[in-house]
Amino acid sequence: MTIKDVAEYCGVSVSTVSRVLNDHPDVSDAVRTKVLEAIELLHYVPNNSARDLVRPQSDAIGVVVRGAENPFFTGIIRSIEQEVDRAGCTMVLHQIKTGANELFAAASLARSKRLRGLILLGGRFDYTPEQIVTLQVPFVCCTFTNSFGTLDQGVYSSVSIDDRLEAFRAVKYLTDRGHQKIAILLDSTDDRSISELRYRGYLEALESAGIQPDPELVEQTSDFDMAAAYAGVQRLLARRQDFTALFVIADSMAIAAMKALSDAGLRVPEDCSVIAIDGITMSQYTIPTLTTLIQPTEPLGQQAVRTLLDELEGRGESRHLRLETILRPGGTVISLS
Amino acid sequence: MTIKDVAEYCGVSVSTVSRVLNDHPDVSDAVRTKVLEAIELLHYVPNNSARDLVRPQSDAIGVVVRGAENPFFTGIIRSIEQEVDRAGCTMVLHQIKTGANELFAAASLARSKRLRGLILLGGRFDYTPEQIVTLQVPFVCCTFTNSFGTLDQGVYSSVSIDDRLEAFRAVKYLTDRGHQKIAILLDSTDDRSISELRYRGYLEALESAGIQPDPELVEQTSDFDMAAAYAGVQRLLARRQDFTALFVIADSMAIAAMKALSDAGLRVPEDCSVIAIDGITMSQYTIPTLTTLIQPTEPLGQQAVRTLLDELEGRGESRHLRLETILRPGGTVISLS
Repeated sequence: MTIKDVAEYCGVSVSTVSRVLNDHPDVSDAVRTKVLEAIELLHYVPNNSARDLVRPQSDAIGVVVRGAENPFFTGIIRSIEQEVDRAGCTMVLHQIKTGANELFAAASLARSKRLRGLILLGGRFDYTPEQIVTLQVPFVCCTFTNSFGTLDQGVYSSVSIDDRLEAFRAVKYLTDRGHQKIAILLDSTDDRSISELRYRGYLEALESAGIQPDPELVEQTSDFDMAAAYAGVQRLLARRQDFTALFVIADSMAIAAMKALSDAGLRVPEDCSVIAIDGITMSQYTIPTLTTLIQPTEPLGQQAVRTLLDELEGRGESRHLRLETILRPGGTVISLS
Repeated sequence: MTIKDVAEYCGVSVSTVSRVLNDHPDVSDAVRTKVLEAIELLHYVPNNSARDLVRPQSDAIGVVVRGAENPFFTGIIRSIEQEVDRAGCTMVLHQIKTGANELFAAASLARSKRLRGLILLGGRFDYTPEQIVTLQVPFVCCTFTNSFGTLDQGVYSSVSIDDRLEAFRAVKYLTDRGHQKIAILLDSTDDRSISELRYRGYLEALESAGIQPDPELVEQTSDFDMAAAYAGVQRLLARRQDFTALFVIADSMAIAAMKALSDAGLRVPEDCSVIAIDGITMSQYTIPTLTTLIQPTEPLGQQAVRTLLDELEGRGESRHLRLETILRPGGTVISLS
């Protein structure tokens, strides 16, 4: 299987495939998708070029950030950079959109920058062995893991919270305070990703409190951005007004949700309690202060780098670490009981 | 002047100076400061080592971010990265604290990564020709310029808003609406930096409205972070409660200021109007929406990269661009007249 085969299969030129491989912007989305699908279908593994073979491997650690608009990542990136720096390596940062293919971006980056290893910050939870073949360097999933995929645990590392469990804790915080009608604002219930895991935690917390889940109280935004979260709450309110609490799967979305509730004339927490997960700095300054589960930002970044370096330097095998959040009570949840 | 002279002058070993030069973390702050001061005092320019001379220059553009905790930078970094990527170069990102020496970090980065050029994102406004000698590659100041320094315009480029003028516009927006007692929350009145420039704009707007400035209404936080802004408003309120409006020099600080006003039992805008500068995404979701002057984030990043690349590729000389903000009325300012 050569680059020519891929080009012929797609009906494009070899240089077009090459542009896609090198993540060049001058390719239409349609062509890019077609080429990427063909690469996956044909199990094409790009050859390192002759030029690559004579270039020494760099000291660079690649960090591919999927969803750079998420302020939650800012602190983790800083923590990763400090740790990479401390190790005398260079961080090469590549930011892609939430919907983009991080494996592909990572493979391109690893090849073009001769990376020693990769940290994926935010990404899909359902990789297959075929999909990671192109990476060719050790990698650590930071803030996520392969919950829905078929990877062998030994072929990668991960450092994250337990999303399902933490969502369970957040929603249990509400049911413990007498809330029965609890809405959820999330990206998607079946994205095979963070949103689906947190949705499962929500369902489990309802179940353990003996509450029947109500599909009408589930609002999917198809996006993690604040504008989508704001619009999601507007749709939810147009449908139902009888919920007493809202679990939002991310702080930044929760801040937008509080704004939408306020603009609809509802008071937080008197008319609707709000709880979230993340603990971004901004969530301390909402009025009232957001009740949230704070992710251990700095340890997440540090452990991701240490895990990768230990693996690169033969000090350890791949690892899977689950760190815990800390609840900040804030002022957005009231007790009904 | 050799590295040995610097070491002798400081009474430390050559390897310590070398660690400082390479921005190694295992050096105490006291020693680092001493060595850096000696380097500046003695006008020491580090030699490129023999190893450096045989290594080819990379395709890397360095971006040194001073004050990475400022969410305003997130969008600019993304914009810079996209533009660097489009040009087929690599972005090497280095984040330092607000108080750190960006010129030194930049010089270290340029040397160790063989950078083609540098973008400084946030930095001091008072460079001297001696201080920039160590950079040795073309550089662009992004979001700031050399207002208080002695650099020749031709030796660097800059892309920013006109801080003094935009602060003038913000405060004029308040005086036009009948406000007379206008407080200001800022980092410092004489930091020879963004804060001082915006303070000058504040004074000029008061003057042009015939208002006598009142030193008791000036609150300096000595920091741009949200916790410092919150504490600053607490100090201001402990001293004076008679101001009807507050100009805050940055959105993130304004969000913390609104929280402090609220915690003190004051309503925004009924008891106190608030206006700021920046236009970070989060400022759309405060309750009420923050009235602010929105900086052109994407063009700032793009123009910084284009300016640098034009210079590197001989398509142009150094340039100094001043971009304009756009006022978003929001809901945090009321008219008294």
